[in-house]
Amino acid sequence: VPRQADHEARRRQIAEAVWRLAASSGLEGVTLRHVAAEAGVSLRLVQYYFGTRDDLLLAALAMLNADAEERGRERITALGPDPGPHAVTRGVLLEMLPLDEERRTRHLVYVAYFVRMLRGERLGEAAKNAPPALENLVALLIRQGQERGEVPPEIDPDLEAVLLLAVADGLQGSVLLGQRTPESAVALVDHQLGRVFTRG
Amino acid sequence: VPRQADHEARRRQIAEAVWRLAASSGLEGVTLRHVAAEAGVSLRLVQYYFGTRDDLLLAALAMLNADAEERGRERITALGPDPGPHAVTRGVLLEMLPLDEERRTRHLVYVAYFVRMLRGERLGEAAKNAPPALENLVALLIRQGQERGEVPPEIDPDLEAVLLLAVADGLQGSVLLGQRTPESAVALVDHQLGRVFTRG
Repeated sequence: VPRQADHEARRRQIAEAVWRLAASSGLEGVTLRHVAAEAGVSLRLVQYYFGTRDDLLLAALAMLNADAEERGRERITALGPDPGPHAVTRGVLLEMLPLDEERRTRHLVYVAYFVRMLRGERLGEAAKNAPPALENLVALLIRQGQERGEVPPEIDPDLEAVLLLAVADGLQGSVLLGQRTPESAVALVDHQLGRVFTRG
Repeated sequence: VPRQADHEARRRQIAEAVWRLAASSGLEGVTLRHVAAEAGVSLRLVQYYFGTRDDLLLAALAMLNADAEERGRERITALGPDPGPHAVTRGVLLEMLPLDEERRTRHLVYVAYFVRMLRGERLGEAAKNAPPALENLVALLIRQGQERGEVPPEIDPDLEAVLLLAVADGLQGSVLLGQRTPESAVALVDHQLGRVFTRG
């Protein structure tokens, strides 16, 4: 009987194959067979771990999100013992920009899922829940900023959270296409952030 | 010999077929033959009017952009004889949001082109020039606002133009997916716009 760690490694190997396929050519027409070939495992193993194609795509997205969250948390932890809500908000927003190869690939995968969701795929339902969670997190951080006197009381946390995330989201495309440098995207996010966190 | 108007109608009929294919299932694997079938014309006619597949995709994008510009201009003209830079900027930004079926379809087509550009398609070069043109237009409108005393002099027109467009761009996805209402997207754009056009 394989150990739990082996199961996890196997699931990850298969999910990474889905991500590579999504990033390079999208998810249109991707079958369990394609994924098995890309992962270098048998079709039966993919079915054993993930079931149907839809289940596999959903699970691979959930694993990517979990990865993104963990990497974001690591980067924020690296800021020091008490980074404060401004730095944490900045960390959350920068996690959304394709600033390095890892985040760039992640965004290409998200684009592939976004396209499938646009075309009415059922798996959209799960992914649809992602943005509100982020909006709630950023709004919470802005409220913490208000409690610490770093954000003016007249600021609307929910509205500014959506605008900050929209700015980061709206800059993704041009950075991915090489129309804008990652540095200039960060400067723009900082400018918008400076409107909310005016002290601190 | 067909009249010029007939040629234009024929070209348009074929371009519209490209847009429909792009909006419904993307541009991956689309051939001249698919486009001819969708347009209800012969393959030779498509080749006669557009040449290669790449030429066709480029021309169909250029025609969509020209259409978008014309519709935007019409909507802005409908605002009255001298709408002023604030209203015109707002018009430009709202043109980017999928507020009705026409703009929604247009955005689905843009997503299809964006995906092809991400995957390194040559036709990206032409489309890459689109955002700077819009940024320049919005920056110009903000400068006009400054001349009329509607925008504070300390505002940086180029920076705010990019942020306004990023906000509109970043809201597109959630409106397309039905996660956000068109009305709330407009309210968010107006909030950001109110930071620039503080008087007028």
